[in-house]
Amino acid sequence: MRNKRVADQIIDFVSKTCSNNVFVLTGNGAMYLNDAIELNPDLSYVCVRNEAAAPLAAASENQLTGKHGVVCVTAGPGSTNAFSGLAEVWVDSGSVLVISGQVPLEEIDNYGHSEVEVRSFGIAGVPITKYTNVITKYSKLITDTNEVRGILKKAYIELNTGRPGPVWLDIPLNIQSQVCVDFSIDELISECKLEIAKDTNLSIDANNIESINALLENSKRPLILLGRGVDSIENFAEFKSWLIKSKIPFFTSRVTAHKFPISIENNFGVLGVRGRPWSSTLLKKSDLILSLGSRFPSSIVGPNYAYLDKEVQLISVDIDINEIKRHGSKVSLGINKSLAKITSLLNGFNLELINKNIESWKTEIQKVKSNFLAQSHSQAADSPLNLYWFMSELEKYADPKTVLTTDAGSNYYAAGQSMNFEKLNYEVTSGTFAAMGLSLPLAIGASVAVKNKGGQVFCVTGDGSVELNIQELQTLSTYDLNVKVFVINNGGYASMRTWQETYFDGRYIGSTDDTGTKPLDFFKISKAFNLDYEVIQDSKDFHDKIPLIVGTSQPMLIEVMCDGNQQLLLPMETDLV
Amino acid sequence: MRNKRVADQIIDFVSKTCSNNVFVLTGNGAMYLNDAIELNPDLSYVCVRNEAAAPLAAASENQLTGKHGVVCVTAGPGSTNAFSGLAEVWVDSGSVLVISGQVPLEEIDNYGHSEVEVRSFGIAGVPITKYTNVITKYSKLITDTNEVRGILKKAYIELNTGRPGPVWLDIPLNIQSQVCVDFSIDELISECKLEIAKDTNLSIDANNIESINALLENSKRPLILLGRGVDSIENFAEFKSWLIKSKIPFFTSRVTAHKFPISIENNFGVLGVRGRPWSSTLLKKSDLILSLGSRFPSSIVGPNYAYLDKEVQLISVDIDINEIKRHGSKVSLGINKSLAKITSLLNGFNLELINKNIESWKTEIQKVKSNFLAQSHSQAADSPLNLYWFMSELEKYADPKTVLTTDAGSNYYAAGQSMNFEKLNYEVTSGTFAAMGLSLPLAIGASVAVKNKGGQVFCVTGDGSVELNIQELQTLSTYDLNVKVFVINNGGYASMRTWQETYFDGRYIGSTDDTGTKPLDFFKISKAFNLDYEVIQDSKDFHDKIPLIVGTSQPMLIEVMCDGNQQLLLPMETDLV
Repeated sequence: MRNKRVADQIIDFVSKTCSNNVFVLTGNGAMYLNDAIELNPDLSYVCVRNEAAAPLAAASENQLTGKHGVVCVTAGPGSTNAFSGLAEVWVDSGSVLVISGQVPLEEIDNYGHSEVEVRSFGIAGVPITKYTNVITKYSKLITDTNEVRGILKKAYIELNTGRPGPVWLDIPLNIQSQVCVDFSIDELISECKLEIAKDTNLSIDANNIESINALLENSKRPLILLGRGVDSIENFAEFKSWLIKSKIPFFTSRVTAHKFPISIENNFGVLGVRGRPWSSTLLKKSDLILSLGSRFPSSIVGPNYAYLDKEVQLISVDIDINEIKRHGSKVSLGINKSLAKITSLLNGFNLELINKNIESWKTEIQKVKSNFLAQSHSQAADSPLNLYWFMSELEKYADPKTVLTTDAGSNYYAAGQSMNFEKLNYEVTSGTFAAMGLSLPLAIGASVAVKNKGGQVFCVTGDGSVELNIQELQTLSTYDLNVKVFVINNGGYASMRTWQETYFDGRYIGSTDDTGTKPLDFFKISKAFNLDYEVIQDSKDFHDKIPLIVGTSQPMLIEVMCDGNQQLLLPMETDLV
Repeated sequence: MRNKRVADQIIDFVSKTCSNNVFVLTGNGAMYLNDAIELNPDLSYVCVRNEAAAPLAAASENQLTGKHGVVCVTAGPGSTNAFSGLAEVWVDSGSVLVISGQVPLEEIDNYGHSEVEVRSFGIAGVPITKYTNVITKYSKLITDTNEVRGILKKAYIELNTGRPGPVWLDIPLNIQSQVCVDFSIDELISECKLEIAKDTNLSIDANNIESINALLENSKRPLILLGRGVDSIENFAEFKSWLIKSKIPFFTSRVTAHKFPISIENNFGVLGVRGRPWSSTLLKKSDLILSLGSRFPSSIVGPNYAYLDKEVQLISVDIDINEIKRHGSKVSLGINKSLAKITSLLNGFNLELINKNIESWKTEIQKVKSNFLAQSHSQAADSPLNLYWFMSELEKYADPKTVLTTDAGSNYYAAGQSMNFEKLNYEVTSGTFAAMGLSLPLAIGASVAVKNKGGQVFCVTGDGSVELNIQELQTLSTYDLNVKVFVINNGGYASMRTWQETYFDGRYIGSTDDTGTKPLDFFKISKAFNLDYEVIQDSKDFHDKIPLIVGTSQPMLIEVMCDGNQQLLLPMETDLV
């Protein structure tokens, strides 16, 4: 057995504190890290075909397993390629640890003149931690083996406290290979846990609940909004039961929707401009909105709070103080805490009184929801599919282990507006960016997460969007991942055409065959990336083929011929008081 | 005619100061910019399939035309996707202007609480200029129509002075659409030119030449090293004639090699660890190296200057002061100037005396070069191709308008070590990163640059590398670009296998079919992206097919079956004094 190198020690730390899978693109600058991964008996790895996909895959795995995702990239472009995906992880509060190789330290130090800033150093070296500093909680270049323990400690604490976000460790080649100062990772972890436990001020407490309750008790038309912050709730199942029992109407952000079937009476689904069509009316009428871990984004509150009643009271429980402060006096009560311990405090809410006050509000809004849900999405026979119909029908073929991933464009909106999360329990998607091409890397991470349980992934994507990470189709076939890639064929770049027609007299640019964006031939694409192919032309085709498609465990690309003029549901006008 | 919007004014500025082509991926957040491009009669555009490719394509066009490349992207992920490519442009001193759409200003301002830093704002908004600040000369968010003129002025000056590098302008949607404060772009340009002309201290002068000459006169074994900085030389043809006439031995960096055929007696080709095999010996023996616009990278000087003689004198003429300072006292004479005006000062060199002193040095090193060049690259019949043989033979099919682009991996090294630039006049490649997947975006930019002149692009890439931007094959077929994509098939990730065999007992990770990186089927890939396909199996195949391949003007993918165990040329040991 060789002496334990810094690379081995770091990878050992990873295996004991994060996912047991690493998303990798190997490279000379990370060679000792790569070899340590290969040698570590507790780690497996998946090779992506562009580093851009790695942080997204890792974040998806993180969302489904709760373990920090892990990425390992090489120096220079290997690192910068991961930047954009990591920015997505950052804005969406994903928890991912990136480990990068770097050129030897002496080259970073500019031969002893490290105070001088230059654009690059060594062969393909860049000061990557200075780049990633703005999109991570902690980015650190390791310059000495003596620092390793302290840096890993800091990384652990950042990964496990506060608002989740990525961490980046950059390790020069000659540091990777050095014999590591000996220390026990297990001891380090215990030490970190003790330190974290010391801070008792982190989670919401009984006093906070009392303050919230006092406002809730006086509200006639309250709404609860559940954001990603609810992921931190311990005993979530118990919290969920209480919420249902409470009868207080609640909404979800796009990324929490999958946690609550729409059949729950007081669940009003996704809130916001592209949320459930009824949501805008309810939002405008509400006199109090209690956000649990949502940042009140402009897609919900509107430009200058235009979607809200002027007198509405906003309560924000948010782990990130700045997400409260940004709203200034618009937030009546800001609680800068995590939701971790909320479950044990729920008896602080006076449900009886609250419910007495909101009886008519509940009845009214329940009617709006029921009326809407009673309408089913229309689908003519022998016609290209209505995206809403497709999404709703697809959901029926999910089983409890199925994961849905969605992409930028109309499928993103349609899913948020129509998925009922009755049979489908998991969706991984974007909360903020809705970046084109997102769905495929998310599906890879999801598939890795649910593979051992035999879970399948429905990866819905657009014929324009899928191009942006199309190289990852090869990852699907290489690893034989159980991912069904549903490519919505609507003639490519449909949403671009929409705004070009609406605002610019139909002056197309980069949105039609003639203006530079002819869509791919997906039959040939499937063959090229060694994937099975199917096409769904209409509703009959759907019902004929879907059972067979979801019945296989191989990856497959399914082209879904949809209406090129798909109209998205708009906020609904109602006569609600 | 509508009122001139800020978007129109900015795009007008672009058309008058930069390339007349914009690399675009359209998006809602950049809609007024997109429409202004569509409407501007002097601009054309090319749609890429991932923003990642756009800065590379624009930089390639910039290198060939001398005009600043232009990229237009949308907010959020559209912007972050361009980050990695732009980092490459930054380290390689490319000149590219990026214009991005941004969410409306009120959302960036956090509803009047702009002092609060949050991770994202609006729908898909991020503070992109804070991200790109580290990889551009100037990054600026436009917050007021009154600022437009001043910001464009600053952008112009940054683009046209100092060490080249990218500039980024970020324009909120509601600023794009506002009626612009009226000002004349032509007047603005005149004003900028006057201002730039005022600074007479920018270029090398007679005194500098005198100082250099004084050192050169005392050198017995001098070398001149030509870096990218020579691109700024006015009357380059005249400078080139003088250099040849001077008989002083010179080397080139990888990115300047194409400017000088190897048959020029005193041209010793590419210098460095993967340069011409003879270069290391000459470098070690030299007593004075005069760098004109090279940063003395570690690939040339070695770790801790190990590739140089301890007593060597280094002279650095560099526009970037930090590239001089980083070497501390190792540089005997540092001149922080551009090379723009050097041509008119060349009579300051005492060529007679210099040449008298270096007679034996010249004779000796000439012998080394001639001996080496006399050997041709071997190629057995009926065998996979020797990459060196392939590159050398391919060069013979170039015409004066042909452009070569190369990628990461063995083809990058082989080209630098073997291209003679006799029939081939242009190569666009990486000077610093050698990022995987680089060659295809560079080829797109190159093709746009030489299209009107009927030029063809030889895009050499690897079977591993090409995957990283494979979506851009669709750009080739959409625009019917005259690009021949030569995919070197060596079993994928050949250079990774090499270090895994050398340093890690052949423990493969992410480098073989069984460890996650099975190469693509390139015949099927060609069909999927609507490209013609050819395969070259051996030398006979090469000679049979190449005339037909280069004789067409359509894009084509050509798979070149190469030796999976290709050995790269190592620095040559010689008995030079």
